[in-house]
Amino acid sequence: MINFQTAPDQYKHWKLNVAGPLAALTMDVQEDVTLAEGYKLKLNSYDLGVDIELADAVQRLRFEHPQVKAVVITSLKPRIFCAGANIYMLGTSSHAFKVNFCKFTNETRCAIEDDSHHSGRRYIAALNGTASGGGYELAIACDEIYLVDDGNSAISLPEVPLLGVLPGTGGLTRLVDKRKVRRDRADVFSTLAEGLKGKRAKEWGLINDYFPTSKFQESIDARVSEIVSGVTQTVSLRSGAEAAGLNDNESSQTNSLRYGIKLNPLQKELKPAGVEYKYVNLILNREQRYADLTVQGPRPEADLPTTPEEIQKLGDSYWPLQAYRELDDALLHLRVNEPEIGLVCLRTDGNTAEVLAVDKTLEANKDHWLVREILLYMARVLRRLDLTAKSFFAIIEPGSCFAGNLLELLLASDRSYMLNDPEGEPTSVSVSPVNAGSLPMSNGLTRLQSRFLGDPEKVDKVLAHEGAFDAESADGAGLITFVPDDLDWEDEIRVAIEERTSLSPDALTGMEASLRFAGPETTDTKIYGRLTAWQNWIFQRPNAVGPEGALTNYGKPTQAHFDFKRT
Amino acid sequence: MINFQTAPDQYKHWKLNVAGPLAALTMDVQEDVTLAEGYKLKLNSYDLGVDIELADAVQRLRFEHPQVKAVVITSLKPRIFCAGANIYMLGTSSHAFKVNFCKFTNETRCAIEDDSHHSGRRYIAALNGTASGGGYELAIACDEIYLVDDGNSAISLPEVPLLGVLPGTGGLTRLVDKRKVRRDRADVFSTLAEGLKGKRAKEWGLINDYFPTSKFQESIDARVSEIVSGVTQTVSLRSGAEAAGLNDNESSQTNSLRYGIKLNPLQKELKPAGVEYKYVNLILNREQRYADLTVQGPRPEADLPTTPEEIQKLGDSYWPLQAYRELDDALLHLRVNEPEIGLVCLRTDGNTAEVLAVDKTLEANKDHWLVREILLYMARVLRRLDLTAKSFFAIIEPGSCFAGNLLELLLASDRSYMLNDPEGEPTSVSVSPVNAGSLPMSNGLTRLQSRFLGDPEKVDKVLAHEGAFDAESADGAGLITFVPDDLDWEDEIRVAIEERTSLSPDALTGMEASLRFAGPETTDTKIYGRLTAWQNWIFQRPNAVGPEGALTNYGKPTQAHFDFKRT
Repeated sequence: MINFQTAPDQYKHWKLNVAGPLAALTMDVQEDVTLAEGYKLKLNSYDLGVDIELADAVQRLRFEHPQVKAVVITSLKPRIFCAGANIYMLGTSSHAFKVNFCKFTNETRCAIEDDSHHSGRRYIAALNGTASGGGYELAIACDEIYLVDDGNSAISLPEVPLLGVLPGTGGLTRLVDKRKVRRDRADVFSTLAEGLKGKRAKEWGLINDYFPTSKFQESIDARVSEIVSGVTQTVSLRSGAEAAGLNDNESSQTNSLRYGIKLNPLQKELKPAGVEYKYVNLILNREQRYADLTVQGPRPEADLPTTPEEIQKLGDSYWPLQAYRELDDALLHLRVNEPEIGLVCLRTDGNTAEVLAVDKTLEANKDHWLVREILLYMARVLRRLDLTAKSFFAIIEPGSCFAGNLLELLLASDRSYMLNDPEGEPTSVSVSPVNAGSLPMSNGLTRLQSRFLGDPEKVDKVLAHEGAFDAESADGAGLITFVPDDLDWEDEIRVAIEERTSLSPDALTGMEASLRFAGPETTDTKIYGRLTAWQNWIFQRPNAVGPEGALTNYGKPTQAHFDFKRT
Repeated sequence: MINFQTAPDQYKHWKLNVAGPLAALTMDVQEDVTLAEGYKLKLNSYDLGVDIELADAVQRLRFEHPQVKAVVITSLKPRIFCAGANIYMLGTSSHAFKVNFCKFTNETRCAIEDDSHHSGRRYIAALNGTASGGGYELAIACDEIYLVDDGNSAISLPEVPLLGVLPGTGGLTRLVDKRKVRRDRADVFSTLAEGLKGKRAKEWGLINDYFPTSKFQESIDARVSEIVSGVTQTVSLRSGAEAAGLNDNESSQTNSLRYGIKLNPLQKELKPAGVEYKYVNLILNREQRYADLTVQGPRPEADLPTTPEEIQKLGDSYWPLQAYRELDDALLHLRVNEPEIGLVCLRTDGNTAEVLAVDKTLEANKDHWLVREILLYMARVLRRLDLTAKSFFAIIEPGSCFAGNLLELLLASDRSYMLNDPEGEPTSVSVSPVNAGSLPMSNGLTRLQSRFLGDPEKVDKVLAHEGAFDAESADGAGLITFVPDDLDWEDEIRVAIEERTSLSPDALTGMEASLRFAGPETTDTKIYGRLTAWQNWIFQRPNAVGPEGALTNYGKPTQAHFDFKRT
């Protein structure tokens, strides 16, 4: 079972060093510490385990070290920055694992860009050696890329020429859409196994600059000093952990106590048929291939502060942060550890008024760094849900609290079922101001905007609605797919689950990927839609993974042989 | 060998009847007239042969019957409009053929929308019976959809629930992006094998309206009369060819003589190693898996009129129309009949001044219906090139004429090589006003805009350039990838061709699909990018095409069995 929880003191492959406004995130992959057997992580190549640490580090920078203004990503290995995803790991993984691996690493790179875009932290890729494949793709997710000019180090995307697959973490899209490299140059670069060195790489816009070995460190330091212009003395980030001043765990600790909050390990109980967290409960109905995923609203006895100072004091046990961290973990668990679960029934349990009170506090204080980070994180978790290749049905019953931020779970679902029993216990759903913009999808729209693309006035109507919607009015407002009465309720849910889980899981994945993202496309949606779909296609072609395929034969004495028919 | 040329008097499956401002395009598929063996085209299901006729009919409406304002697409078969792509044809086709089949049918549907959008012809899908799968996808490519309410007829997309694949011609994208159907309703509709009948289909926005059998024809007639409001008497389109007044070939003929031009059969000579047209020459180097495709500019002796009246008199032998019709045919031939050709070297041959003179005439007269149709058609052919899954290298040598509209061939290429030999015969490329907007890509941008996304000022600079660019200045302006001198020229081209054709054809297809379409996305690019890629992926999954797959087992006594792992 793959565990997505880690912390800096458990990192095997990365070091996170923070000194005031600077952070060094240094890669030093332990080649024998792998997530599975059968491969070694040579040359700073990575598997999912390495990327889980990177994702954790970026997350901690935002919550634990908010004072950091510049993050330098570099390598502790000589002459190599990062060789990308490990080929032998890919060659021995199942198709489903490869796809999920790429999705997670994509989310990590998008999280870096999200941090840069929304929280203003500047990411500098200091390529002190060759960055190939996923190594360059990590660099291109950063704001600036600098390459050492040592006569040898290069950047490259050798996937097409060497492996017969595509760069799997957004490289092609970011080349032409983010760095806006001319498409003919992108074509040449992406077919050149040996890649490009400093001069031409800069000329073509693939890197920002290159420096000779003797000037590399000071040039990076100078650029970083420019960024953190408030800092008077130049702080060296040389060699990460070994650099003087940066080893100072105490000062880093002081800073984090002063500014950040600590992200403590999630408490979770693994059960034979599920996972139980404090606010999230995952129950697996493995035989029927569906899961019930319930998010609890804040408990009546919970501490629900209304000022940023109190929230900061409460830290990671503040309901929205804790509940969404648990939800995030549960989604990742479902993706990777429970492949046969095809449908997730999303449920909520709690008090609508309390969820809305939390939203009120969040919206009122979203200029405060921590509240902003919490909202941005909730948005990322919801996008993780949008991008999860499982069907989602929202089930609204008495006692549920699909309100405000939790209404997004309903809006993110492929369908919703709401019990309509005016005689019995009431059901309701409610909007809050966070539904108006704080939790955008990857396409840049809110889920309400995406839902009502054809009738934008409905968005305003829904947002202006006073009080809760009962089943009839929620249906009338366009929020719900089906509102069965109590006589039909159980049968209808049961049949819907049975039908959904009987369909081809592949067709559902492709259908959901097509229907969930109406409207505009962004670099993110292009990466998850167009690029990922093509990569998935290629990842199962005999030319890549067949006995004579390029991925299969990489590093072997045998050579790949292609069926040259163009498709 | 599949032939893409046809004409109404050769149609087996469609009837095109034109009466003044009205056209009836009626489907009556002959089940035994198939492009391959092993299936029957029952229930108005179609194979590529049926769609070639539809594409031809839409094309002829634009050129031969420009006075037509409304096109009613309907069926001559009782109780069935169209059952979509033939399942047994799909089940017995190779993966590459399935993919190319879907691409062509997508282009046909996009051509219908292009006609509606740019030329204002209104397409009415009159569903006089059930429209399932590709049948509904044809309808949703039209502007308006009307369904008969006979207690039985329905619209449906049964691909996911019955076949384990996706609707292959844009259905999912058009549901949420064109008709802007709510995603939860799109989800329900796309998983419901039996589909929806009139009432709910209208309520959900899937059709415009529904009418009882007894009122169906008169309601369609009334709607059509509204559209062609200039027409005083209601013209009935009942039963297509059988309708009184519509059989009148003479009146149709009169109209086309009065307004339209005739598209005569292309003269082409099939040779063992290529195809020779008048202006286009395709030479296949099959052993090396590449082709040379040369487009000739207007010949010195050619008639190059400068007024619309003269152009109309010249008709389909006018250079741009004839050359692009030949280019279109050559591209389709390459796609379907020459799958092993992985690279096309695009060359031109002729006089730059004459190409530019044509562009000047086209731009000056683009308000004239025929000139506008010619430009719109050239744009469609160039988009067909953008969407062709082969690599394209533009080769610029002495005697070539990559100018204006033919410069788009260079800009559409993955790379360009221009001989730089100041001492020898000169090479040049030139812009014209048509490069500024008349030939847009599927993403809505010009090829120059897409090329210089990162530096939009370069677009204006290039367009403002006086006279031709020589190799140095073209390189400086960012128009060319490589400008080898005459000593390196032959080796560099040879090596580039050898390298390109040695790479995995699948990886190249995915790479090119990712690099060619930087910038904004449109419904078209979503269909060709996101949706097509997912469909391609699903089309080769064992859950669809394996021995126990849904597509394989459709219509057999055996049942599909899925591997339920979600990917």
